[in-house]
Amino acid sequence: MASKLLVFQSDFGLLEGYVSQMYGISAQVDPALKMYDITHNIPQFDVWKGSYSLYQSCYAWPKETVFVSVVDPGTGTHRRRVVVLTKAGHYIVSPDNGSLTHIKNCVGIEEIREIDETKNRVKGSENSDLFLGRDVYAYTGAKLASGIITFKEVGPKVDVESIHSFNLSKPRIIGSEAIGSMDIVDGHFGMLWSNIPIEHLEELNVKYGDYLNIIIYYKRQQMYKNRVLFGQSFTSVEKGEDLVYKNAIGNVAIGTSLENFAHKYNLKAGMGWSISIITN
Amino acid sequence: MASKLLVFQSDFGLLEGYVSQMYGISAQVDPALKMYDITHNIPQFDVWKGSYSLYQSCYAWPKETVFVSVVDPGTGTHRRRVVVLTKAGHYIVSPDNGSLTHIKNCVGIEEIREIDETKNRVKGSENSDLFLGRDVYAYTGAKLASGIITFKEVGPKVDVESIHSFNLSKPRIIGSEAIGSMDIVDGHFGMLWSNIPIEHLEELNVKYGDYLNIIIYYKRQQMYKNRVLFGQSFTSVEKGEDLVYKNAIGNVAIGTSLENFAHKYNLKAGMGWSISIITN
Amino acid sequence: MASKLLVFQSDFGLLEGYVSQMYGISAQVDPALKMYDITHNIPQFDVWKGSYSLYQSCYAWPKETVFVSVVDPGTGTHRRRVVVLTKAGHYIVSPDNGSLTHIKNCVGIEEIREIDETKNRVKGSENSDLFLGRDVYAYTGAKLASGIITFKEVGPKVDVESIHSFNLSKPRIIGSEAIGSMDIVDGHFGMLWSNIPIEHLEELNVKYGDYLNIIIYYKRQQMYKNRVLFGQSFTSVEKGEDLVYKNAIGNVAIGTSLENFAHKYNLKAGMGWSISIITN
Repeated sequence: MASKLLVFQSDFGLLEGYVSQMYGISAQVDPALKMYDITHNIPQFDVWKGSYSLYQSCYAWPKETVFVSVVDPGTGTHRRRVVVLTKAGHYIVSPDNGSLTHIKNCVGIEEIREIDETKNRVKGSENSDLFLGRDVYAYTGAKLASGIITFKEVGPKVDVESIHSFNLSKPRIIGSEAIGSMDIVDGHFGMLWSNIPIEHLEELNVKYGDYLNIIIYYKRQQMYKNRVLFGQSFTSVEKGEDLVYKNAIGNVAIGTSLENFAHKYNLKAGMGWSISIITN
Repeated sequence: MASKLLVFQSDFGLLEGYVSQMYGISAQVDPALKMYDITHNIPQFDVWKGSYSLYQSCYAWPKETVFVSVVDPGTGTHRRRVVVLTKAGHYIVSPDNGSLTHIKNCVGIEEIREIDETKNRVKGSENSDLFLGRDVYAYTGAKLASGIITFKEVGPKVDVESIHSFNLSKPRIIGSEAIGSMDIVDGHFGMLWSNIPIEHLEELNVKYGDYLNIIIYYKRQQMYKNRVLFGQSFTSVEKGEDLVYKNAIGNVAIGTSLENFAHKYNLKAGMGWSISIITN
Repeated sequence: MASKLLVFQSDFGLLEGYVSQMYGISAQVDPALKMYDITHNIPQFDVWKGSYSLYQSCYAWPKETVFVSVVDPGTGTHRRRVVVLTKAGHYIVSPDNGSLTHIKNCVGIEEIREIDETKNRVKGSENSDLFLGRDVYAYTGAKLASGIITFKEVGPKVDVESIHSFNLSKPRIIGSEAIGSMDIVDGHFGMLWSNIPIEHLEELNVKYGDYLNIIIYYKRQQMYKNRVLFGQSFTSVEKGEDLVYKNAIGNVAIGTSLENFAHKYNLKAGMGWSISIITN
């Protein structure tokens, strides 16, 4: 009872037909598949962002949905090509290059299988590794989503702990301060998302309507400091005012009402970016 | 006999997974849904453009198609969240924030129902209003498109006249002059679309091949003045020449052959922009 | 036994609802159609690129897939509107304006039929030729993909040789030199694709690991000259180094590892661009 749902993510963009070719190969496997996207605008070669994006979006889809994620600066190197079954019941087809960092650390991995390319690869493509997105990842994802192969038939089991993962710092509470990393800039609205679960603010007795002292650092340098309202929505503040809020995945985020927070203060996110929330 | 067709529009862009999350939630409601888009590149918070875009595109789809439109600068405020049945037989799920202006004025509304969120909202999302696109609009649209709920089961009926609408001026004929508003710039080709129905030109005995005196105003300031051919297609004029023509929704529009009309003359559209067509 | 697969390509972009209107009309023809895209970001009016893009992507899709390609600078002129059956078993609905150049020359055309618009055109659209993408091309493609009409019912047969085609130079071998045209820049990664089949390098006894002298010309002017590795993937070279490789359609291509080759050396492709590969 396969899901028939195949959802793609890549850094290929939509200027060229690369995404279409992955769709086409998948439709050859099973024209009944329903194919959709997370995004193909992951910044080129940005494995961190690709990893985070899976974490951001997979949860919304039905169990058994098969995701194909291809963000792979070193496409063709002999890194493993794997399919992951997450603890939430989703399958993710991806290179084992760090793309599964947030899925492993924030969602959890039930089981990993390495793709057996003697079976799960487009026939005749063995001599070229230039378009693995089509020949291995989409093709295997399509076979799995269509029910042509089971998860076991992807290939041999691999140790979950052996998977390549970036170092993620854990969010902490120290006295009346919540500390965490700034993981991602929301590219469209410019909000910054931290890894601090909203529960950490609750432990510190923060309530909607409270003001918080927020400092954002890049390495040890202070990049932003402000006293900011913790509110339920951006209508709690005036246009141009900042707001701390609970984002779509239950973490602390910060943005500016009707403006682009990251552009306004010239902030980024990812490796080296952190946040301190002082509650009194 | 639900349509199973669910068509999205928003100002979310496609850089992030927001659209995908709306798709995912909808696929959870019913994986058999066929999901498509109008566009997700409505300029951010541009409710006018979102309203016009519904008017521009809904007509092409089958009756019973369910549209989900989320352009909502004040997401989370206690404006009503509604589903509209248009006189053309389409359903539109949207905030009642002006997004339905052109549908109301140019297509007509048969009936409006306010979404009863005790029933039509993702379970567990009640405490956060930050992603209503997913939790209320897409979720309700998916239930309606899949036939899980009927239109009645959306929630209580609302007075059609109570809906929030921008002021639209009506196109008029004064002597040998047709007057109207300039409603929209076609972002890709740069044509300007007026609200003057082609029938107004016919009433003035204008025929293909005639030249018209066109003046475009911003407020009372003249921004463009030219004598322009009224033709059936852009092949009626040379590259770089302007043309008045009948657009996809039957109104008078103006563009430049193989060039971007709006960029060329530095014109915009929307509130404050108007056009005068003098036929002799 | 129609494919039910309808795949679109255009230069309409995704800012406006034009693509959605083609989808909508097609869903009216048959809501069971599965609709996807190659891309809608063909540079505006760039028929050459549209032609090449069909060649680049169609092959990946199942036989019987119907493609609708609308890149038409002179939309509305009385050029023929046709459906092509390729030697690979795909259908392509397109204006006969050069868009089928690469399909004809590189894939081969089995049969062409001119669209009979007395039957295969949206009712009531006869008086406006401004949106043929919707009224003729998408509509006819949808009827064909859904099985409502057979290929024969598209309209009368047309001589394959009568089709409008750009002049394509043929790749040649002269002594130890392979010569060809530079057909396309891959917009996202900036690789340049030639029309030289990889077999020409094999005839010259080139093997993976060999270095080749590459010269790229615009008309008679030398734009790039370098000694470049012929490798299986970009991991054969360091970041910033160039690589000659076999592209997705079996031709010689050249790019830079983890950088944009075309931007780096200020190169383009298409008419007037050629490449010389000297193997010793």
